Amino acid sequence: MKKTVSIVGGSGYAGGEFLRLALGHPYLEVGQVTSRRYLGDPVSLIHPNLRGRTNLKFSDPAALEPCDVLVLSMPHGVAAKEFDKYKDKAPIILDLSADFRLKNLELYRKYYGEEHPRPDLLGQWVYGNPELHREALKSANYIACCGCNATAILLGLYPLLREGVLAPKPIFATVIISTSAAGAEPSLASHHPERAGSIRAYKPTGHRHTAEVLENLPGKPELYLTAVATDRVRGILMTAQTFLQDGWSERDVWQAYRTVYGSEPFIRMVKVRKGIHRYPDPNVVEGTNYCDIGFELEEDTGRLVVISAIDNLVKGTAGHALQSLNIRMGWEETAGLEFTGLHP
Amino acid sequence: MKKTVSIVGGSGYAGGEFLRLALGHPYLEVGQVTSRRYLGDPVSLIHPNLRGRTNLKFSDPAALEPCDVLVLSMPHGVAAKEFDKYKDKAPIILDLSADFRLKNLELYRKYYGEEHPRPDLLGQWVYGNPELHREALKSANYIACCGCNATAILLGLYPLLREGVLAPKPIFATVIISTSAAGAEPSLASHHPERAGSIRAYKPTGHRHTAEVLENLPGKPELYLTAVATDRVRGILMTAQTFLQDGWSERDVWQAYRTVYGSEPFIRMVKVRKGIHRYPDPNVVEGTNYCDIGFELEEDTGRLVVISAIDNLVKGTAGHALQSLNIRMGWEETAGLEFTGLHP
Amino acid sequence: MKKTVSIVGGSGYAGGEFLRLALGHPYLEVGQVTSRRYLGDPVSLIHPNLRGRTNLKFSDPAALEPCDVLVLSMPHGVAAKEFDKYKDKAPIILDLSADFRLKNLELYRKYYGEEHPRPDLLGQWVYGNPELHREALKSANYIACCGCNATAILLGLYPLLREGVLAPKPIFATVIISTSAAGAEPSLASHHPERAGSIRAYKPTGHRHTAEVLENLPGKPELYLTAVATDRVRGILMTAQTFLQDGWSERDVWQAYRTVYGSEPFIRMVKVRKGIHRYPDPNVVEGTNYCDIGFELEEDTGRLVVISAIDNLVKGTAGHALQSLNIRMGWEETAGLEFTGLHP
Amino acid sequence: MKKTVSIVGGSGYAGGEFLRLALGHPYLEVGQVTSRRYLGDPVSLIHPNLRGRTNLKFSDPAALEPCDVLVLSMPHGVAAKEFDKYKDKAPIILDLSADFRLKNLELYRKYYGEEHPRPDLLGQWVYGNPELHREALKSANYIACCGCNATAILLGLYPLLREGVLAPKPIFATVIISTSAAGAEPSLASHHPERAGSIRAYKPTGHRHTAEVLENLPGKPELYLTAVATDRVRGILMTAQTFLQDGWSERDVWQAYRTVYGSEPFIRMVKVRKGIHRYPDPNVVEGTNYCDIGFELEEDTGRLVVISAIDNLVKGTAGHALQSLNIRMGWEETAGLEFTGLHP
Repeated sequence: MKKTVSIVGGSGYAGGEFLRLALGHPYLEVGQVTSRRYLGDPVSLIHPNLRGRTNLKFSDPAALEPCDVLVLSMPHGVAAKEFDKYKDKAPIILDLSADFRLKNLELYRKYYGEEHPRPDLLGQWVYGNPELHREALKSANYIACCGCNATAILLGLYPLLREGVLAPKPIFATVIISTSAAGAEPSLASHHPERAGSIRAYKPTGHRHTAEVLENLPGKPELYLTAVATDRVRGILMTAQTFLQDGWSERDVWQAYRTVYGSEPFIRMVKVRKGIHRYPDPNVVEGTNYCDIGFELEEDTGRLVVISAIDNLVKGTAGHALQSLNIRMGWEETAGLEFTGLHP
Repeated sequence: MKKTVSIVGGSGYAGGEFLRLALGHPYLEVGQVTSRRYLGDPVSLIHPNLRGRTNLKFSDPAALEPCDVLVLSMPHGVAAKEFDKYKDKAPIILDLSADFRLKNLELYRKYYGEEHPRPDLLGQWVYGNPELHREALKSANYIACCGCNATAILLGLYPLLREGVLAPKPIFATVIISTSAAGAEPSLASHHPERAGSIRAYKPTGHRHTAEVLENLPGKPELYLTAVATDRVRGILMTAQTFLQDGWSERDVWQAYRTVYGSEPFIRMVKVRKGIHRYPDPNVVEGTNYCDIGFELEEDTGRLVVISAIDNLVKGTAGHALQSLNIRMGWEETAGLEFTGLHP
Repeated sequence: MKKTVSIVGGSGYAGGEFLRLALGHPYLEVGQVTSRRYLGDPVSLIHPNLRGRTNLKFSDPAALEPCDVLVLSMPHGVAAKEFDKYKDKAPIILDLSADFRLKNLELYRKYYGEEHPRPDLLGQWVYGNPELHREALKSANYIACCGCNATAILLGLYPLLREGVLAPKPIFATVIISTSAAGAEPSLASHHPERAGSIRAYKPTGHRHTAEVLENLPGKPELYLTAVATDRVRGILMTAQTFLQDGWSERDVWQAYRTVYGSEPFIRMVKVRKGIHRYPDPNVVEGTNYCDIGFELEEDTGRLVVISAIDNLVKGTAGHALQSLNIRMGWEETAGLEFTGLHP
Repeated sequence: MKKTVSIVGGSGYAGGEFLRLALGHPYLEVGQVTSRRYLGDPVSLIHPNLRGRTNLKFSDPAALEPCDVLVLSMPHGVAAKEFDKYKDKAPIILDLSADFRLKNLELYRKYYGEEHPRPDLLGQWVYGNPELHREALKSANYIACCGCNATAILLGLYPLLREGVLAPKPIFATVIISTSAAGAEPSLASHHPERAGSIRAYKPTGHRHTAEVLENLPGKPELYLTAVATDRVRGILMTAQTFLQDGWSERDVWQAYRTVYGSEPFIRMVKVRKGIHRYPDPNVVEGTNYCDIGFELEEDTGRLVVISAIDNLVKGTAGHALQSLNIRMGWEETAGLEFTGLHP
C-alpha cells in the first residue's frame, strides 16, 4: 500500500522537485502540497512540467492533514520556529532547510549569525546524507537533509579523509553553483538581463554550508570554501585542492573511493582516459540523483584536485531526501530516482 | 518476456536517445548498439549520461545479430541504400531517418534533390506519427519515424485542418530549432564560440521536412516553412500564422483540438490565463515525450497563431519512435516515456 | 564646443545605453542623469561597465537643470503626461518611449488601449528613424525614437515596399527578441531560473509596435506581427515572409535595397554565399548600431523571406537616437557609434 | 603619420581581435592579414563583425611585405620555429603565442614538455604585461604578449606579493575560463551540443600558464593553478585563495593595490558594498581592456580571496598587446582601447 507524503512549501524549487519525484515514485502518493501565495492554484501553474501529471492544487498550510511522511521546504529558520505546528502531522518528517542539520551550536552561531531557536530539538534529527549515515537513516524519524554544496564537498572528500589518504594540510574547496540555488523569489540579482552570462563570486568566504561540512568530515580538517555562481540553472561543480600523504599514489586514492563507495547506487567514479568527458560535469548529471566524482594528481607536488558534480536540486536536495526516505522505509534505495540524464 | 532491440548507428544523438529510452523500458532489452568509429568503446564514452547504467560497448554493424526490433539511425540515404543488409535481422524495423517517410516520389525529388534510391520499398512503410497514424501502426512492421520539425508542425495543425477550422489561406510556419538537430559531427558552424548566442536563419526556404508535412496534412494546405536556429541544445518552438474561417471563434479551435486529441497521452493543451507559462515552451518539455500546444486568436483580423513545443530528440525522434513501437507491440503507450521534465 | 545632454530615467536599460554612448561621444558631455530610486548613487552602481569612466551620480529629476539636449527615458505614458515639466529644459528633446511616435490617434487607441493623453503635442514630433526620415530629422527639435522591433521590421521591409518589389499580399513578420526588451524591473517572468533557456511566445498577436510599423511603411501593407522571446540578453532577429511581384527576381530585390540604402552608414547588406555567416544574426551586431539585412527567395513559389538583425538597445533604441541627434546637430552621423562588435 | 601593422595568422581569434582593435586605432593602419586557409577571402567572411569596416582580404604569409609593426598570431611553437622568416619584415614584432614568454628554460621544459626550439632568441623579448613591465616595454622591439590566464593571475596577485601583504603560504588559484580560449578550430570538445551548459575541469593541474606566472611574480611564491571551463565564449574569472600576514588587515590590502596600481588606466578596483555588482565579473569587462580586481578577507582565519576578471581576448591577449604597442610607440596608452563594455 502506498504511503502518503505531503509537502509544506511546494511552490519553491526544492519542494517542487520533491513533488516531481514523489509523483513518479512507486510507493508514494502525494497528499497535500501547500503554498500560501498560490493557494487554490493548480501546482502546474508554478511547475509547468507537471501539466497532465497531476490535478493537485496548492492547499493552505493551516489546513494540513495527517499523512505518513511530511516534507518541510520552508525559508531558513521557519521549520525550527514552527516545528510544533507540524510535529504531530506525520510520524516521519524530512526537512529540506538547514534548520536541523547541525549538532554543534557554536558552529550554528558562527555561520548563521544567531542563536539556534530550538536547540532542544537537534538531538532527534539525523543528517540526511545516505552515503555517510545510511545506518542511522534506517530508523530515523526526523531527517535533516544535507545542503547542496555540502553534499558535493562531503561526497568528494569523505572517503579520502576516512581512509587517511590526505596529508594534514588545508583543503581549499571551490563550488561553482547555479542560479536555482538562490530560490524562486525574483530579485535584481536574479533578473535575467543582469544574471545571464555572469560569473559571480557569490560567497568568497563565510558560506554557511561550511558548518555542516566541518561537522561531518572525519578528522577535523582545515577546510576553506569559496562559492562562485555561473548562470547554469542547476548544478554544482566542486573542485577541492589539497595534498596527498607523502609516498601515497593515485592507486591509493582510487582504493579509498572503492573501499568506501564500492556499492553505492548513486556514486559514479569518473575514470576515463579518452574522449571529451574525462571529469565530472554538472551537465551530465542534470535531473539525476548521481554524484560523479573524479580527481587528478599533480605528480611532482603531491597536489590532489578532487572534482565532483551533482544536480543541486536532486542529489543536492530533493533526490537525496527521497533516497533517505527510501532507506528509512526499507524500499529499494533507487525507487523514483531512476532518471539517467540527457545527452546532449 | 522482454524483446531485444538493437540500434544501428548508436553514437549519434538520435540513436543515443533511443538507447537511453530503451534502457529504461520495462519490456525491452538492448542487444547491440553499433558504431564503426567507436567500435569496442563503452557506449558511455560517448553518452556519459549512461555511466553506471549499462556496460554495453559499441559493436560492428557488420556483426549485427538477429533481434526482435531493429532501429536504424544512420545518415541521410544510408538506410535506403543498405536496407537489404538489415531487412532480415528483425521482423520489426524502425528507421529514424527521412529515407522512407514519403510516398510521393515527386515531393522526394523536389525536396531532396535526387531520385529516391529504393522507391520499391516505400509502400511497406508506415509514417511513424502516433497521433495521426495509430491504427496503421498497430500492425506496422516497418515504421518510418516522423521528422522533428514535421512533428511540431503536424501536431499543431492537424486537428485544425481535419476539423475544417482554418480558412483556405496560406499557412506560414516558423520553427525555432536547436543545435542538436544538426547531429553529432563537429563543424565550424557548430563550433561553440561561433554558435553560442547565435540566432541563425537556418533554412529560410526549402526545408526538407516541408515534404512530409504536406503529405500528411489533410486538405492539401498551402504551407510555407522557415527554420531559424537558436543556441538551445534541444527543443523546437513552432509558430504557425494563418486565418480562421469567417465566423468561427476560439471555442471552435479548442473544440477541434479536443475532438482530435481528447485522450492522447502525450499532447498537452496549454490554456492558462495567468502566471508566466501561458504558451508552450521547449524548456518545459525538455527530455519528455510531450507536445505542448496552444494558440492565440487576433480577434479583429481572424489571424490565428498556433504554437507548439517539443523536444526534437524525444517527441521529435526517439520518443515517438518508442511510442510507435509501444503501439505496435500492444504495450502501454507510455511505457518507458514517463519522464515529466524539470522545473526550473 | 561640446553640447550638454541630460538623461531623465538613467537607471533603466535604454537610458543607461544612451549614457554609455554619450560618454564616448566627441561633441557631447553629460550633464545630469536622473533616477528617483538611486538618487545620489554613482551611475556605475547600476551600470558597472561605466566604472572608471565617469564619477556621475544619479540626480533628482525635480532638480533638472537646463541643458542643450534632453533625453527622456521613462515608462510608457510618463513622458506625455509630464511633458510640460521638461519642455523648457532644453531646445532639443529626444523621447525613447512610444509616447510620441504615432500621428494616427486611432492606431494609438487600438494598440495602446487608451486615449492618447496629449494629442495636441503629436504634430511637433518627428519619428526618429534616420533611414526613413533623415531630412525631417535635420531640423527636428522633438524626436520620438523608433521602437526596437519596429526598427528591425521597417529597415527590413521599407525599400521593398517603396520600390514596389512586393506583391499585394499579406506580410507575416516574426521578431525573435531578447530579455532586455522587458526592462530593468525584476519579475517572476524575468527570474533567471525561469527565463534561462526559455523560448516564449511573448506577443503572438497585438504587439504595440505594429502601429508604428503600419504608420511608416509605404503602401499600407497588410502586416501581421508575432513576437517570440529567447533568452539572449540583447538583440532582435526579424524574419518576414511575403511574396515577390510576379516575374520579379532576386536581382530586383538587391536593386531595391541598393537604391534606397546605397550610402547608409549603418545598414549592411548580407550577401555571402559561403562560410557560416550567410544571414543576419543578432550575435554579430551586438553592441553596435548596425542593422544587417539579408533575404532568401523561394524560386518556385515567389515567397521572399527577409531577415534583419539589430541590437535592440543600440540600433533599436539609444544608438539610433544618437544617430538622429547627430543628424540634427550636423555632426558626422557615425560620431560615438563606431563600435564594430565582437567575434567571437 | 600612421604606422602600418600586419598580422600573421589573422583568421584565428587572437589575430582577429587584434585586427578589430587595429582598425579602430587612430595611429595604425592595417597592411596585410594572412591566412593560408582563407587566402583571398574577405576577412569579414571569418570575422563578420568587420563587415562594412574593411575590404581587406586574407593574404599569403609567404607574400608578406615590410611593415612598421608585425603581429604574430600562430599556433604554439610556430613563431619560434619560423622566426627567421619574419624578423626582417618589421622593426617591431609582437608575438601573441607563448613561444617567447619565458626566460627560464627549465620552466619551459617542465610545462611545455619539450626543449625550447630557439633559446638563443629569448633574451631579446620583453614580457608584454604593461602593468608589470611598462618601463621595459618603452624600448622593446620584441614583445612576447602575456597569456590570458597569466594576466588574470598576475594582475590580481602582483601588488600583494610586491608589497609583502601575503603570508609565506601556498596560493591556490582557480581560473574559470571560456570557450574561445581553445581557439577557432572545431573539435568534438567544442561541438555546441556537447559544450553548451558544460562546466569542465579543463586543466586541474599542469596548466602551462603556471610557468609565466611563476617567472613574473615577486618572491617566488608556491602557487597552484586549477583551470575550469564554463560555456561563456569570452572571459576569465580568477579566484586565488591564500593568507594575509599575521596582524595585517583589509586596509593593507587596499593600500598595496593603490600603491602599485594608483594610476593604471585599465585596472579598476571593485570596492562596492551595495547593489549586485560587488565583485569582478567577466560579463562586465567583455570586449574591454579592463581588469577588474576585488577581494574578500575572512576575518577569523586570515584567508584572503582575491578575485579578478578580464576578457581573455582583449586584456588577456590582443588588448594588452595593443596597450604594450601604445607604450612602445609613445602613444596615449588607451588609444584604440576605449570601448567601455555593455550593460546589460
